[in-house]
This record gives sequence, structure tokens and C-alpha cells, in this order.
Amino acid sequence: VTARRAALIGCGMVGGSLMAALRAAGAIGHTVGHDRDAGHAERARALGLIDEVVGDAAAAVDGVELVVLAVPVRATAEVCAAIAGAVSWATLITDVGSTKLDVVDAAERTLPDPSRFCGAHPMAGTEKSGPDAADASLFRGKLVLVTPGEKSAPATIAACEAMWTAVGARTRRMPPAQHDRVVAWVSHLPHAAAFALAAAVGGVADEVAGLSGGGFVDTTRIAASDPTMWRDIFVANRAPLLAAIEALDGELHALRAAVEAGDDAAIEALIARARDGRKRVVEGRA
Amino acid sequence: VTARRAALIGCGMVGGSLMAALRAAGAIGHTVGHDRDAGHAERARALGLIDEVVGDAAAAVDGVELVVLAVPVRATAEVCAAIAGAVSWATLITDVGSTKLDVVDAAERTLPDPSRFCGAHPMAGTEKSGPDAADASLFRGKLVLVTPGEKSAPATIAACEAMWTAVGARTRRMPPAQHDRVVAWVSHLPHAAAFALAAAVGGVADEVAGLSGGGFVDTTRIAASDPTMWRDIFVANRAPLLAAIEALDGELHALRAAVEAGDDAAIEALIARARDGRKRVVEGRA
Repeated sequence: VTARRAALIGCGMVGGSLMAALRAAGAIGHTVGHDRDAGHAERARALGLIDEVVGDAAAAVDGVELVVLAVPVRATAEVCAAIAGAVSWATLITDVGSTKLDVVDAAERTLPDPSRFCGAHPMAGTEKSGPDAADASLFRGKLVLVTPGEKSAPATIAACEAMWTAVGARTRRMPPAQHDRVVAWVSHLPHAAAFALAAAVGGVADEVAGLSGGGFVDTTRIAASDPTMWRDIFVANRAPLLAAIEALDGELHALRAAVEAGDDAAIEALIARARDGRKRVVEGRA
Repeated sequence: VTARRAALIGCGMVGGSLMAALRAAGAIGHTVGHDRDAGHAERARALGLIDEVVGDAAAAVDGVELVVLAVPVRATAEVCAAIAGAVSWATLITDVGSTKLDVVDAAERTLPDPSRFCGAHPMAGTEKSGPDAADASLFRGKLVLVTPGEKSAPATIAACEAMWTAVGARTRRMPPAQHDRVVAWVSHLPHAAAFALAAAVGGVADEVAGLSGGGFVDTTRIAASDPTMWRDIFVANRAPLLAAIEALDGELHALRAAVEAGDDAAIEALIARARDGRKRVVEGRA
């Protein structure tokens, strides 16, 4: 994708990183940013992630060829409705949200020409948020799931993939429903586990403060993520997430029963299965 | 501690790292190693972690001033019984195990002079194991919990603390029972959560292979740990671990119920509590 003018709606870490990366790649010219939180937009401009702040979403997208939505997933429909009358110049409207069925549905219901919308989800988030956490190299070597809706035009899909390739990412195309099932397992469930673990250990913080090692730090790193953003993701992806939590609950109960019974073989088998499962998931090729 | 001769029983990552670090600090002279797995001991010698391999534990400790036990916690009693007749020269007998009530009890029951035993637990493990994973800088800046038994002599405790200080670690003294409760929360529970999570996601590995991001990788890093070692730890620290798993289970169920009900406020509150709890645990001073 090459755009003389581009608009970023939502000037947080992921959107800000993408604009900075596209500019570094020479793929975009003038960048307009809008954020419900004017301070975020101003900060993004001060950091050089965008060139200009516009206080109104419709005015921000006016005359631009590329529109990137980087708002909490639940805000997608509202933002699409706000910009619907002003996106006639856009050849690609895309997003970076962590759930896709709801986002694609909102975009298709709200945009005047849904053929020019194609959703995407970079698997490159961190526990940080806000424009100060933006990093132009965030997507280098990372995987981006590109999730066309049924109405996305082939040229739109290709433009979306080209945009991510331009910033150094690998892309893999999959339908929104498959995306939501996959991320329930590899992203949303780990967050749920990390939140539950950090909350549990936090309950005895007075006794254990300062005594943790690298294991606790890494296992709960993503528990430092933004509560509002993750509340939205969990609710948006409720059914796949609940199925995944069910499976985690089953494994945790199996482990608890084996420990309670002092069943050496069962404990060792579960740990070996965990180690093997992790290896297959992490080292498998997408 | 300064020892002309030292013995390492169990030549894995932690024991090997300690000997390499003590030597680098100039705290020990000739080092004798023994391992039930002769290949491990030979590899430790080839790597320069120890100077000499001795095939018999009692012969290995003969005439040494420092004895470090770095075996799976469940093997402590057997090893102590094996060396009991040959440790008369030792001024410090210590261990590096992840549980302490059982280890201290085994040492006190088995050693001829328990006043010269003081247990310790460096909070510096990783998911790796074996002599090839040893690293002389492993303990630099890390916390070591020093857990004297009721019979440990003051000079023994001081020597144990001095040994860890010599390799760059910070020490904190606490009774074995408190140690076991603390590590159930900050170490054993994170491992249990990581094992359960990796096992659950491994169950759908065919669908999600290669699609994970940094969140899954970090959250399950310690799930790649050695199954036998962790089986022993879980069984040895059964009661405190089960109490911690109970708390994790409670948080996971609360999160599941809130997601099921689409209860925005409850989800957000739990995540915020997790974030705050993690911060207090990680940033608190020991």
C-alpha cells in the first residue's frame, strides 16, 4: 500500500507503532490522527508518530487513502458510523483489533462500501499501552492474521497484506470466526490465566512481596495489560474464550487431583504433556 | 565461605552454576563432583564446572570443607545417608532445593552433625536443566532464601549466607515452613498454572501451531521445565501448593462467571486487581 494521506483513529501503542513503521518504510506521506483522548493524539504527534491532530473522526479521514482503526474493539461500530460519510477516498480501511467477527460485522454494517474494509490482527501486542509505548520496529518478524470479511474485495485484501509486509511482518489469511477461535487459545486464554494467577498471588502480597523470581514475573507479565481493553476483548470473544477456560480448568483440576493423591505418574505425565504441547504450539509453522 | 576442597552432589544447572560462580569468585579450590548420571558429572567436568568426577557420593565428600547437595529434593535423605560417614571435615553442608521442610528434616535425621547443615534456595532457576545450562553469573543480583533448621549453628548459617553473597546474590533468612508457603505462591503455583495452560492449549496444537505471540510464549516459558524435578517439588510441597491452587481456581471461576454474564465491571475489577497484585508482589522489597 502506498498512501499520500493516511488517518489513524485511536493513537495508542499498536496504531502509533504501525504509523511510525509505515512512515519509516516510506509507505505513507502525511498522517492525520484522531483520538477520543485528545492528550493521546497530541502525544502521538509530539512523538512524531503522526503529523497532525484532528479533533473529529470524520474530518480526520476526509481525503485519505488509508484508514487505520486502532480503537478498543467495542468502539468499532461507533467509529465506523462516525467516519462513514467521509471515507470515499479510502482504498483500504483496516483495523488492528484483537477480535474479528465483531469488528468485521460492525464494519460491514456501518461502512458505505464494505468491499474496501479488511480486518487484521498483529500478534505483537505487549502489556504496555498508550502512544509512549509505540515502537516502529514492533511488527518486524511478527505474525499478522489478516481476516477478510465476505465482502472484502481481493484488491483490499492484497493492500492490507502489502501494508503489513511493508513493516516487516509475516501475514496469514484466515476467516474471522477461525481467527477468534485461534486467539481465544493462544492469546485470550493466556491473559485469563495470567490475570487469575496474578490476582491469586496478589491476595497474599503482604507475605510474598519481593520474593518472586523470574517464573512469576514472566508468567504474569501480560497481567499488567490494560483492564478496559481486555474487558472488551473478553466480552467480544466470549464463547471461544469460555471453551478455552473450560479446558484450562479441566487441566488444573487434573493436576490438583494428581497432587492431592500424590500420584507421581499422573503429575509427571501432565507436565510432560504440557512441555510437549507448548513446543508444538510455539515451534509449529503458521 | 572459603574451601580448599568442595564437593557437588548432583551436577545439574543450579549446582554446576554455583560451583562455577564460587570458583570465579575465588572462594573454592579443588572441586569434586558426583552425579547418579555419570554422563552429567563428566559433562560438568568437561565444561570446567568441577575439577574431578568421583563415582561414589561418600568418596566425593571425603575430606572436603563444603558440600553442596543439588539433587532432586526427594533424593536428599538417600544422599545424606550415603555421605553421612564421610562428612566429618565439612564445615558447611547445604543444598539448593526448591522445598525446604522436607530437605531440612531429611538432613537433620540423617547427618551425623546437623548443626553444620543449612538449607538454601536460590530464586534463580530457569526452565532449563542439566550441566550445559549452567552459568557462573546465574545468581548475580538474585534472591536466595536461606532456611536454617532449628539445629543449624550460627556459624553454619553465616557461612551459607557468605557463600551466596560471594556469588553476587542477596540473601533473606526465613524458617523452612515459611519458605515452603512463600514459594508455593511465587514459584510452584506459577509452574502449576503454566503446566495447565500449556497442556490445555497443547490439546488444540494442530489448530494453533505457529500462531502464538509473545504472550503465550512468556506465560508458558516455565512449562518447559523438567517433569521429574517438578513432580518431586509438587509432591513435597503438597499442602501449601494445594492451598495456592485453590485460590487460583477461585479467581479463574470468578473470571469465567463474569465473562459468562458479560459483567463489564466485574471483569475490569478483576483485571485491575491482578495488575495491582502483580505490581505489589514484583516490586515489593524482600
